[in-house]
Amino acid sequence: MSKPVRISLDAMGGDHGVSVVVPGAALALERHPDIKFLFFGNEALIAPLLNANPKLKAASEIRHTDLAISMDEKPAQAIRMGRGKSSMWKAVQAVRDGEADAAVSAGNTGALMATAKICLKMMAHIDRPAIAAMWPTLRGESIVLDVGATIGADAQHLVDMAIMGAAMARIVFDLERPTVGLLNVGTEEIKGIETVKEAARILKETPVPHLDYRGFVEGDDLGKGTVDVVVTEGFTGNIALKTAEGTAKQIAEYLRAAMSRSLMAKIGYLFAKQAFAALKEKLDPRKVNGGVFLGLEGVVVKSHGGTDAIGFASAIDVAYDMAHFELMKTIRDMLEHGPLEQPA
Amino acid sequence: MSKPVRISLDAMGGDHGVSVVVPGAALALERHPDIKFLFFGNEALIAPLLNANPKLKAASEIRHTDLAISMDEKPAQAIRMGRGKSSMWKAVQAVRDGEADAAVSAGNTGALMATAKICLKMMAHIDRPAIAAMWPTLRGESIVLDVGATIGADAQHLVDMAIMGAAMARIVFDLERPTVGLLNVGTEEIKGIETVKEAARILKETPVPHLDYRGFVEGDDLGKGTVDVVVTEGFTGNIALKTAEGTAKQIAEYLRAAMSRSLMAKIGYLFAKQAFAALKEKLDPRKVNGGVFLGLEGVVVKSHGGTDAIGFASAIDVAYDMAHFELMKTIRDMLEHGPLEQPA
Repeated sequence: MSKPVRISLDAMGGDHGVSVVVPGAALALERHPDIKFLFFGNEALIAPLLNANPKLKAASEIRHTDLAISMDEKPAQAIRMGRGKSSMWKAVQAVRDGEADAAVSAGNTGALMATAKICLKMMAHIDRPAIAAMWPTLRGESIVLDVGATIGADAQHLVDMAIMGAAMARIVFDLERPTVGLLNVGTEEIKGIETVKEAARILKETPVPHLDYRGFVEGDDLGKGTVDVVVTEGFTGNIALKTAEGTAKQIAEYLRAAMSRSLMAKIGYLFAKQAFAALKEKLDPRKVNGGVFLGLEGVVVKSHGGTDAIGFASAIDVAYDMAHFELMKTIRDMLEHGPLEQPA
Repeated sequence: MSKPVRISLDAMGGDHGVSVVVPGAALALERHPDIKFLFFGNEALIAPLLNANPKLKAASEIRHTDLAISMDEKPAQAIRMGRGKSSMWKAVQAVRDGEADAAVSAGNTGALMATAKICLKMMAHIDRPAIAAMWPTLRGESIVLDVGATIGADAQHLVDMAIMGAAMARIVFDLERPTVGLLNVGTEEIKGIETVKEAARILKETPVPHLDYRGFVEGDDLGKGTVDVVVTEGFTGNIALKTAEGTAKQIAEYLRAAMSRSLMAKIGYLFAKQAFAALKEKLDPRKVNGGVFLGLEGVVVKSHGGTDAIGFASAIDVAYDMAHFELMKTIRDMLEHGPLEQPA
């Protein structure tokens, strides 16, 4: 029997706190019976929910904290107030202290990233963290990073992200050598921003084992799934992600309007109801919930703040995979054989 | 009777050249009978098509050129070869020389922009050009700029774009005071890139008449249509535009697959056929074809290279509106009252 995967949860994080985190954990436990949960938060709120679910209760331990970081807390304030005390900090600290293999929080991104950076520290050779998101594509799924951990990236950061993203892709997609592209405004070598061109040069000149560098990709390659891993700087990545989410919502809205515009359309909708249900599931953002923090000495997964139990369970699934298939070890191995930053 | 609107056309531009440009002009003429066309390109190819359409012929003049700029020509080479000679250059030159009120080309973006910059020159107080695109939204349409004219922008460039975009919005949407937002990774004032924050400060401290600055917007505000004009730097803008296009195609593909997965779905599709047709029209990229070059001493509109006659006609419509409603004058007026660059 393999070791259980221990996951620490910030039970107070997100818009809905325990009312989403606990049922989410229950769903994830059904899929992965070898999870052990560490809940950090208000015991008075968590305990009754666990008591109502004996199976979950048996796999869980509660660690009471008085302090929760609110969704609009500024990162610096979250650290000042929460250091050593908040449910968010404690969940991450459990990873640092070896009590958990991964932490999941639906708390605010800035506060969680600041907490993770200070509490866990950066990996050797990595200067800046990144957030990697799963991106649904016509081929299946891709990994896109950075979707908003830091703003601006030099060539070396982009190379670091390519390696870390490839490591994650090996685990998530079970690939020997994932394909990697750099997001740019054209696929010709002469095009684009200097840092992106320089990163391309490094990746071409210094092949990394287990990373199949495929050159530049454009915005529309994201949906096509042209490569397994798309690397970009955090400002652009965040805007691309939100633009895609917004476009998906917009088209769903158009579709809804089209299907209710006439009696014939409504009848058609009834006949095709199952097909629409399948489409809806395909577009369900809860299925791809869970941004993985990369570059830190430990696995931290950020859930959307507004998600429900199904979405939160997806984020736990991601954390489970990262821990179970040893993301940290895979990244370390790949970095060792990659083009590391040269001492100045 | 008002003056005709004179539009010069690069008849050789785009993937399909005259076979799209001439029928596109015919479609636009039906909507705007006061257009006069100047066709630049191979007369042997253009003349037979005009002869077949007496109405179009009566509104058109052909200026023969031997040289066409190919779709993969590098900008510098396009200038070196094409200066004073290519159909692209000549079409733009007609605007400079006062023979045309606007130029339209489906030729390659880089070559067209380089040609326009050199031939037309930049407007006073404007350092860099921008390309403004129409963006379909849940509220109707917005203008987004820059979608790829230049990479990188300082705060003053962003402010310049806000003013030029607002001028265009006044014309296109017939608004007294269009709303303008700066694309960012969060709506809080502390978030984002320095240049964006600085541009926000300028726009807040120096109100511009006819420009209603609304603060930061995020990627998902594009599809919502939160503001009339969204301003961003060209790298991010280009990636956002292509990401949205890619997402729209991806969902259309999912929808197609869903509607053919079962007999019931197929029957439903038949009933709702008109609704699907309406949806398809709504998502038709040809309807929003036509990127407007802003910041130059003259109106130049870029059509997608791969579009058909319907799409090319849309680009002509855009050029028509810009000329007819005096874009250049509107921009100049607004710039005069805006926060201009201070002499160093």
